[in-house]
Amino acid sequence: MERCPLHKAFMLLEPGPVVLVTTAGEDRPNIMTLSWTMVLDFTPRFAFMTGAWNFSFEALTGTRECVIAVPTARLAEKAVRIGSCSGRDVDKFERFALTPAAASSVKAPLIAECYANLECRVADYIAEHGIFILDCVEAWVDEKQENPRFFHAVGDGRFIIDGETVSHREIMLEKLPPGV
Amino acid sequence: MERCPLHKAFMLLEPGPVVLVTTAGEDRPNIMTLSWTMVLDFTPRFAFMTGAWNFSFEALTGTRECVIAVPTARLAEKAVRIGSCSGRDVDKFERFALTPAAASSVKAPLIAECYANLECRVADYIAEHGIFILDCVEAWVDEKQENPRFFHAVGDGRFIIDGETVSHREIMLEKLPPGV
Repeated sequence: MERCPLHKAFMLLEPGPVVLVTTAGEDRPNIMTLSWTMVLDFTPRFAFMTGAWNFSFEALTGTRECVIAVPTARLAEKAVRIGSCSGRDVDKFERFALTPAAASSVKAPLIAECYANLECRVADYIAEHGIFILDCVEAWVDEKQENPRFFHAVGDGRFIIDGETVSHREIMLEKLPPGV
Repeated sequence: MERCPLHKAFMLLEPGPVVLVTTAGEDRPNIMTLSWTMVLDFTPRFAFMTGAWNFSFEALTGTRECVIAVPTARLAEKAVRIGSCSGRDVDKFERFALTPAAASSVKAPLIAECYANLECRVADYIAEHGIFILDCVEAWVDEKQENPRFFHAVGDGRFIIDGETVSHREIMLEKLPPGV
């Protein structure tokens, strides 16, 4: 995996893909599947929503660290299955044949099979709304995966895979953050 | 436009499309283009991030109401142009030939050309992070627009248009909210 400059890392979450979030646990690392994420700043800062019903919640609030991994469409079925069982019962890396890789700044592992991995620290947790505020401190992309196509949850069990890309860059040049 | 049952309305934002947010102003309604949104609950409750640099911010905090309109890909260029000028200077409905339609529960207008319109009330505003928490109180879809394809911001001026849809519904049936 190649280091992704931090000022470009927001682009990995901006389109709203389904992501896999890893946390370090006392016994073993865990993975949860999430669709409820958003970008908050280009630094980059992200938000996602989860709650105590999720086994990863304790690791997240305890370690205040995670990795947001972005899978491509070929991992869609696996991501759904990861989201349909609990790390309380299952070693998800083992069951789903995914490879944990050491991150550089957090204890939570990268997922080697994912296109992108965003190492994050919890900057704040808004308990009333279940919102985690995350600062991304290191970002990685697997440039060997060419033309990655991500997937987006519809909410009813269907997932939309990325189609064609269009550019309207010339219209919004002044609005783009520096270096993007 | 047809009423969309509220328990299904989260599915209009869940995939992470670029949206247009309308507000009622003292002089005229305004529209802003947003990509930084997320679902918080199936009720449905949404979050989005914006700040005082945006002309809509004052209307949003003053009226505590808005409409989140979801455009399809044929409105992508228009959405980018809407996001590249300010309602301080421009009547955006007029300049971009969009049709404001009366909402049923809020003063902000629906956008008749959009596939979906979500009438929202501001439930909370987390000033430290610029996050608005919104309760959707009424939702509309234009069922005449068949097979809508939405678009997602990459962040560098490119936009990804929805491609094919796959179903993994059978895997996650137990995880789906009632009636979805």
